[in-house]
Order: sequence, then structure tokens, then C-alpha cells
Amino acid sequence: MTEQRRGLSRRGLFGLAGAGVVGAGLGTGVTAAVAQGSSTDSGAAASYPFFGDHQAGIVTPAQDRLHFASFDVSDISRNDLVELLSDWSYAASRMTAGLGAGSYGPANGPYDSPPDDTGEALDLPPSGLTITFGFGPTLFDDRFGIADRRPAALIDLPHFPGDALVDNLVGGDLCIQACSDDPQIAVHAIRNLSRIAFGRATLRWSQLGFGRTSSTTRAQVTPRNLFGFKDGTANMRAEDTAEVTKEVWAHSADGASWMAGGSYLVSRKIRMTIETWDRTSLREQETVIGRTKGEGAPLSGGTEFTAPNFAALGRADVPLISTDSHVALAHPTNTGGATMLRRGYNFVDGNDDLGRLNAGLFFICFQRDPREQFVPIQLNLAKNDAMNEYVRHVGSGIFAVPPGAAEGSFVGAALFDA
Amino acid sequence: MTEQRRGLSRRGLFGLAGAGVVGAGLGTGVTAAVAQGSSTDSGAAASYPFFGDHQAGIVTPAQDRLHFASFDVSDISRNDLVELLSDWSYAASRMTAGLGAGSYGPANGPYDSPPDDTGEALDLPPSGLTITFGFGPTLFDDRFGIADRRPAALIDLPHFPGDALVDNLVGGDLCIQACSDDPQIAVHAIRNLSRIAFGRATLRWSQLGFGRTSSTTRAQVTPRNLFGFKDGTANMRAEDTAEVTKEVWAHSADGASWMAGGSYLVSRKIRMTIETWDRTSLREQETVIGRTKGEGAPLSGGTEFTAPNFAALGRADVPLISTDSHVALAHPTNTGGATMLRRGYNFVDGNDDLGRLNAGLFFICFQRDPREQFVPIQLNLAKNDAMNEYVRHVGSGIFAVPPGAAEGSFVGAALFDA
Repeated sequence: MTEQRRGLSRRGLFGLAGAGVVGAGLGTGVTAAVAQGSSTDSGAAASYPFFGDHQAGIVTPAQDRLHFASFDVSDISRNDLVELLSDWSYAASRMTAGLGAGSYGPANGPYDSPPDDTGEALDLPPSGLTITFGFGPTLFDDRFGIADRRPAALIDLPHFPGDALVDNLVGGDLCIQACSDDPQIAVHAIRNLSRIAFGRATLRWSQLGFGRTSSTTRAQVTPRNLFGFKDGTANMRAEDTAEVTKEVWAHSADGASWMAGGSYLVSRKIRMTIETWDRTSLREQETVIGRTKGEGAPLSGGTEFTAPNFAALGRADVPLISTDSHVALAHPTNTGGATMLRRGYNFVDGNDDLGRLNAGLFFICFQRDPREQFVPIQLNLAKNDAMNEYVRHVGSGIFAVPPGAAEGSFVGAALFDA
Repeated sequence: MTEQRRGLSRRGLFGLAGAGVVGAGLGTGVTAAVAQGSSTDSGAAASYPFFGDHQAGIVTPAQDRLHFASFDVSDISRNDLVELLSDWSYAASRMTAGLGAGSYGPANGPYDSPPDDTGEALDLPPSGLTITFGFGPTLFDDRFGIADRRPAALIDLPHFPGDALVDNLVGGDLCIQACSDDPQIAVHAIRNLSRIAFGRATLRWSQLGFGRTSSTTRAQVTPRNLFGFKDGTANMRAEDTAEVTKEVWAHSADGASWMAGGSYLVSRKIRMTIETWDRTSLREQETVIGRTKGEGAPLSGGTEFTAPNFAALGRADVPLISTDSHVALAHPTNTGGATMLRRGYNFVDGNDDLGRLNAGLFFICFQRDPREQFVPIQLNLAKNDAMNEYVRHVGSGIFAVPPGAAEGSFVGAALFDA
């Protein structure tokens, strides 16, 4: 059944229709985890459908592993771009259902062509894989006839004070966020989508991550970042449907109607100077963060989920929570209500030539309008955050994440409607 | 109880005695997994004792994640080196038991010194952490008075045909292999051991890995490498105690009596040119490997665990398993009986400037004598293996892995006996 669609697209890879691929009881709601497979580990067997009103991987409970990739589109036509998005959507619908991108053998046999799947995820359960596609500002230049459909919210990010961006870690025409509880599954997804894009789009930068830096459900223990502090205590929760509707999903009334039900993704690769941090006193660390290291309680007292009291004063009438602490600057009560859905991951990319771990936070957030959410929050942090002494923003991206694809269609179809 | 030892070593970090740290029912056998903690995931709660006859992380069932690090020792004295190994052993005994490297606050308070643990593993279970230490050939130069104790088996590896080694991915005075089922736990271990080494040893290179490329127990499904093929079908199994005793552990009679119960580790960072591989026909892929991609059966027929029949001929009397296939060259029946205990991991380190994934296999093997095991096997592969077209060896290391430390002592103590 899963092999009934054998027609390849013009590039000799995949075609459009996804018939029969994810129909087998997977439903279409983006938040419903469907257990399948024979693994005894229910986490590994978790599966999220690809098709639906919203793309998966936004409000989906954050999986443990990330492979994020940014692509530059080659010198191809508008039709070729549509075909690429169709091929990607088809392959993504298969992989998120626990299937290969195609057959691990050549779909049309015999043995004398390359396999349609690279094979390293054979025998493995879907492991909660989600694949989320986004469109960068440069996709809306004059190449594909969509310049007039660029959403106003898909801005070029401003320069932030202290930015130390590295050219080849910035931007991209397209992005793919692959999340899974198994790194081999996330890597397999990006690898096969890169392979399918051969000749049409090229990897610009990519990032692996682990752990979770936002607790997207209140039921979880709040994960810790590589500063060793709980990260995400006061963040928006993915199950707060009313807040997600108001703050995460784009609406028709926002303009760019093809984006209704989509969202805007901002990514920042934030290197931490952890060797310096590790030689800093606990007092300094807690002052910078504004919370205790063990419990994660605000320095104004209480426990982790006690609301911070920014007015509380200590000795010499100094605020217990420093005004330039991260929690003071980032807390929704101090950002004029601006908030975002965070979905970041820790990373370690080996070490640099000085023997320092190349480590930090790959920050990802989703929001309805970066002009009102990420940008003002980050401007304030970049100017004032005491944490700036210990971080360096080296990578950056902004992408319009279209709504979910209808079954048999592809991600972003409405953008290309005549 | 776990905090009773508060004396810091001269460097202001950790001291030697590990009293009270792992006594709480953890035993001393290296193969016994002890469930503890409150996680419902028994894998996450697995814990292996640090002290014992052999170091853990060799015959321990391979965990899912790796952080491997190589260090250069700074300009310090023999006593400083001993103190470093003592501090490392103490911290390792704590971390493998699910504790911090030290207190997450300063051990002697108040708040005005750095924490003795970086904190990102607080709240997390031990997740099967093992920490394995090794000594490189350069440790036995004239700095530490141990030149005459260098084991003959700890050779300088020869140049192999096709080697494309990158200077800063080769060698090291010391190595640490940290394996865990949680990458945050493995990273936490290397980070804290690096921190403890500050001023005494510097990270030279480090590598994260995932998945397992050797099935160290017959009970597991054989994992796949990034070529998409099962890897490790015919390998030595860690539970074959007789074979491990004969092929993995160093014996007193081998010379270098301080190494009895230890082993020799060879690491190779093997980059795969996966984009080229992915555009190769299934026929070519299977011919190169000598096995089918799906089942992993030898091309002479049968199923995965059927013994390959290298004499079986096909059309035109050509061997069904090509004589330059990987399985033909690496199979124990064709290496004069030479064999090793493999423990490799897949890696993906982002992508290079051409948009190719920087991915491959971080190969690790343990053996009694590399002169009789890794070297002849690799020489033969390097000369003849059809797979060489798709791999490039960019990193390399060889380390003497001492026997396990007795409780309260440190790894390598016998090397420094007067």
C-alpha cells in the first residue's frame, strides 16, 4: 500500500500526491500522538501526522533532539520550486509516519539506480519525528514571482547590539526543522530531504541540538540550559490554546492570507562562553539570571513557579532581582506583554582551537509577528542583559512557516496559487 | 553522606579519596547495571559503578550517546599529573553515580566562588553514564618520569594508505570516553572534567556521537551506520567473556604489568562522503559492503547471521561476495583471526562550505594489542577495501586504557608506583 505511488517528479525523485501514505489511522490533528510500531518504548513509537491545519513541530511537545537546516535555492524556475516543495512534503509525510523517504531500493528497480531512501532509519520507530518547513525573506526576491506576496511580518531582522554573526550561519531561502526523540531519525530526515533537493537547493547551514530548553508542557520538569539553570519556567506553554491562537498563529486579518494558520520562526545560534561562566561565582551566576541555580526560584523568594517580585528590595534598597538580570528583562510582565513560544535546544559542536567547547543554545521561537515579539524583546536584552557578557550571537535566521498542508497537497501551496 | 569529603586538592578543585561516594549498594562489578532514581525509564536510571577490576565503558553494553575528548597536558609536574588523575577519578565516581562532579554550589561556601558542578545535569538520572580514561603515547615522553613504563603495545600508529588526517583531530596525551543514553549527561561529564583540568590539561579535540555502530549484545537489533547498512553483525560480543579475556584485556605476561586488566583503544574519525554514496546504485552499495542493504545478509545468501561463504561463485565464476568488499576484508575468517571489540558512533558535525553534511563514523575499538589487531586489519582495509572510495580518515588516536581503579584510588595509579 505504501508503495502505490511510484511516479517520480521531473528531477527523477519524488512526485506530489501523498495518497495512501498517512491514511492508516494517523488522523490529521497536529497534537495527537499516535502510538504505532512494536517498540516497548512508547516515546520511540510516538508518531505525529504531517498533514493538518498547522505544521507539526510548533505546538508539538518538544522532542529531545533537533536537526535544523537552512537551504539556498539554486537557479531554478518557479515550477521547479513548487516541485521541490511537493517532493519534500511527500517525503516528509512518509518519514513522519515511520516509512523511508522512498523505498530503500530503487522504486522502479532494478538495482542499477540509487535507493530512494538512505537506509539508516530502517528498523527504527518514528520516534516522534516532526518536519517543519519555512520560507526565508530571500525566497521573495524576483526569482519566483512571489515578491508581492512577502508578508510584512517576514522582516529582515535588524542588527542587534553585540551581534557577532558569522556569514555562513545566517539566513537561507528555506529552512527545515526536524525534531525527534532519536538523533538518527532527525539526521535521516534532513539528509534525505537534502538528497531530494539535489540540483535544486543546497545546504547553507545546519545545526544539531539536544535536550530541551523550553518546557512546552507544565507537566514536565523544566529542562536546563548549558549555564546549568532551568530555562523556560515562565514561558508560554504549547497547550495554552487561547494564548497560542493569539500569539503564535498568523491570522488572515494580519495580511498575507496564505500564511493564515502559519507562524514566524526566528532562530539564533547563541554561543556561550562556558569556560568563563564556569569560573564565575555562584553569586554572580544567580545575579545574572535572577533565579537560584538549584530550584530555579526567583531571587525575590519562593519556589520555581512563584511569580518574581521585581519590586522587592534587599539590603541598601537594592532590588533582590537585579534590573539587568535575564529574568527581569525577559519576563512577560516586563516586556509590555510581548511573548513567544520557545523551542530551543542545547548544542555542543566539539571545541575550538583554544580548547574551549563550542557550545551553547540554538534558540528557536515561534510567533505571530516578530516585529511585536522577538525584535523588541531581543533589542532590550541585547542592550541591557547582564548575560551578554557570557553569550555571543553567531547565527540568525527568520522564516515564514506556512500553515499545514492538506492531505495530497504540499506545504506553502497557497503561496503559489494564481 | 555524599558531601562528607570536602577537602579540595592543591588546585582548589577536588581531592583523592572517594569514600562514601559509590558505596551505596552500587557494587563493583563493571557489568552490573544498578537501577536507581525515580525515573520510569529504566534505561535512564541505569547506573554503572566507576571503581572495579576493569574500567566501565569497554564491555558495558554500548549506550546511545558519546562525547569523546582528547587532552594535552600542560607544563605541570608528575605530582600535578597524579593529582589531576585523582581529581578526575573522584569526579567520575560521583558523576557515574548520578551526582554532580561536586556540589552545584561552592563546596565551602559562601556564594563567592564558582560552583563545583556546572549544574546542567541536576535533576537528571545517571542515564548509564560511563567514563573511561586513557593515556596517549606522548604522555610517556620525558616530562613525567614514566618513559620507561610505556607499553610496547602503545605504538605510534603507522601511516595508512589514503590517510587524510587533520592535525588538530589527531593524538593527545590523555583521553576520556563518556558514554550515556542522554547526550546532556555525556556532555556534562566532559565539560566538568575539562573544567577540573583547568591549568593542568587542555582540550585538544572532542567528538559527539549518536547511535551505535556495534551491537555489543546478541540480543539487540544490529544498528545501522550512515551508509544505511547494518554495522557489527559479525563483531565480537562483549558478553563473550572468554574471547574478551583473550582479545581485549591486557595481561601481566604482555609486559607493562601496570596495564593488566586494561586495554588499548584506537579511535578513527572516518568522514563518509555520503552525498556521493547516496547517488550510487544499490548494486554498487551492496557490492562494496558485501551484504544486502535491507536484511544485512551476506551476498552469498541466507539471512543476517548466516556465515558468509566467500568461496561461493556467481555468473562467470565471479565470487558472490567481492574479494574487495568490506565484509570480505574485515571478516574475522579473512584476517587471520584478528578481531577487536568495536564501540563506534555515528556523527554529524553540521555541513561544510559546499553544503555537504560533515558526517560519518567515529570508530572506536578496544583490543589487547593493536600491533596484532587494529593495525594489520586496517592496513589490509586501507590498501584494498572498495569502501575507501566513500570514506576519508581525518582523525586518529591510540590510548592505553588502564585497568579500573580500586575504590578510593585513581585510574592509572599503578603506573605511578615507585
